[in-house]
Amino acid sequence: MNDERINIALTIGDPAGIGPEITADLIEKGRFDNHNLYIIGSAGELSKYLSQKTADRIRTIADWKSAPEIKTENPILIDTSLPNANLPAGRASEQGGRISGKAVETAVSMALSGDVEAIVTGPISKEALALAGYSYIGHTDMLADKFSSPDCQMMMVNGPLRIVIMTRDIALKDVPGAISTDRIKKCVKVTDGALKEFWGIKKPKIAVAALNPHAGDGGVTGSEEREIIIPAIEMLLSDGLTVEGPVPSDTLFYNRKNKDYDAYVALYHDQGMIPFKTAGFDEGVNMTIGLPVVRTSVCHGTAYGIAGRGDAESGSLCEAVSLAVRCCLTKREKAGG
Amino acid sequence: MNDERINIALTIGDPAGIGPEITADLIEKGRFDNHNLYIIGSAGELSKYLSQKTADRIRTIADWKSAPEIKTENPILIDTSLPNANLPAGRASEQGGRISGKAVETAVSMALSGDVEAIVTGPISKEALALAGYSYIGHTDMLADKFSSPDCQMMMVNGPLRIVIMTRDIALKDVPGAISTDRIKKCVKVTDGALKEFWGIKKPKIAVAALNPHAGDGGVTGSEEREIIIPAIEMLLSDGLTVEGPVPSDTLFYNRKNKDYDAYVALYHDQGMIPFKTAGFDEGVNMTIGLPVVRTSVCHGTAYGIAGRGDAESGSLCEAVSLAVRCCLTKREKAGG
Repeated sequence: MNDERINIALTIGDPAGIGPEITADLIEKGRFDNHNLYIIGSAGELSKYLSQKTADRIRTIADWKSAPEIKTENPILIDTSLPNANLPAGRASEQGGRISGKAVETAVSMALSGDVEAIVTGPISKEALALAGYSYIGHTDMLADKFSSPDCQMMMVNGPLRIVIMTRDIALKDVPGAISTDRIKKCVKVTDGALKEFWGIKKPKIAVAALNPHAGDGGVTGSEEREIIIPAIEMLLSDGLTVEGPVPSDTLFYNRKNKDYDAYVALYHDQGMIPFKTAGFDEGVNMTIGLPVVRTSVCHGTAYGIAGRGDAESGSLCEAVSLAVRCCLTKREKAGG
Repeated sequence: MNDERINIALTIGDPAGIGPEITADLIEKGRFDNHNLYIIGSAGELSKYLSQKTADRIRTIADWKSAPEIKTENPILIDTSLPNANLPAGRASEQGGRISGKAVETAVSMALSGDVEAIVTGPISKEALALAGYSYIGHTDMLADKFSSPDCQMMMVNGPLRIVIMTRDIALKDVPGAISTDRIKKCVKVTDGALKEFWGIKKPKIAVAALNPHAGDGGVTGSEEREIIIPAIEMLLSDGLTVEGPVPSDTLFYNRKNKDYDAYVALYHDQGMIPFKTAGFDEGVNMTIGLPVVRTSVCHGTAYGIAGRGDAESGSLCEAVSLAVRCCLTKREKAGG
């Protein structure tokens, strides 16, 4: 191992979804062989999609604590499967939830003990996690809790397009009550910090979307701009950040052609996800910023409907690992390491 | 005049905005000389941008009722300006609101008396209208009232892309309370009718957007899909319409590439306007469907900031007239005229 190698925990995701096959494909391709990959999840499911040659070079262990001791340039597989597990194919199950939940917990433990710099996660099933007794809405909430980072944010990344989804997966009717001056301030500061730390941008320029049509039209179509968003932006400006807004969300992303902003803060899920997907991108990475560790994820789900056939695309997972590597390298450089 | 000529009322819009100059440009270009244009608004402001040659061929009158008597193939200008009006340039005023409001009222009168088949409107100022004592949020509400068509809908059109904005310009917090099964049913029916009448589509296929992220995710992120939207769609299906939904709005417009739908129903302003603008269109037409008359409009505002220089683009206005002509022709054909 040399200094350029990055230690990455890669969770396979729900064992009944496409996680095992896309992880196997990623390992087969060998694109990240110059880094240390700790693959975490169901060894049995993963092995179904591995060639004999690749299977032979992987070392499988049960306890993550022994992983750092192993001197190898090959991926290490940390098995979180259950004894006598009988996984139903292509659907959510309690056992699938336990296996994928434990994999994320293992990755967190490795990050907290300093054994990995990055966590990359495969697709989990919210339903399976719930069946297994987890109360998290998704990865982001689980990581926020496990890392004690309540202000961490979900950022969607595709090349130079970065959109933070401030209120994540909540009902539209709960959005107005979930935004506050304090929350916007924290969200923008976390975004500003991530742009500096992970992309090396010296003075990030961030746009904050309005909540209402035409940014409230002077109060005619909503008061949150005046009462909540503008005060947050004024405080951030006086703190020295470069922030603009509230920008009407229908013109905000349209003007993206101008490449004006390093990141956009969307106040609610569809406000950010509509332009992210409509912009024509088939791929993207879901990232969590504001954690003590780099964390990226595929931006698709378990795709139960096509799982098991072995023809799922590993593109988004490769992008996720790739972005994690780049962020780690920039972070090291910034830290002077 | 022959049968192919269509009678169109074209309102100039706010006299202090770019309406006069883009209207003048449209007349100068002569693209619609084979139709009967009734230009309605401030004659004084319009004349500033007309060449002598064009000015000479326009007949200006004060009372719209005399318009149909005039036998001419040239545009007729119906002057709604005020005596001794002193209009401030490039900003909203009470007088500007009165002039542009009266122009719309004149156009409505001409439509109600059967003198025009279509109304095309230039950009008005909501602020000016309010100063002049009008209580309408915009053209659509004014036309709904004047034509006694409460169920008329705002549709954004750009080529094959048609997006209906069901709740129009209201605050985001008021959106969940403004949607109902009955309203969605009416909205889809008006949309279905317009697609048949104006585009000659025999069996229109319409998609209805979800309100919540992931269409409520089975109730986890909102209940309106189950309680309000799905019942509406089921009733519409049993009425024989071809409707799909609720479709998560972030994938709805992304899948537009498939050209699956003849129209999309967005439940709130930014849900429809973000993809409409992000899709990369610089131009588009704002249309009102569900009125007894064809009505189209520019999709930009008064642009006070650049008004008076004479360099505003008339592209959107030309598109609006062009679409009105096409809709009238299809409507006539359907009516067997």
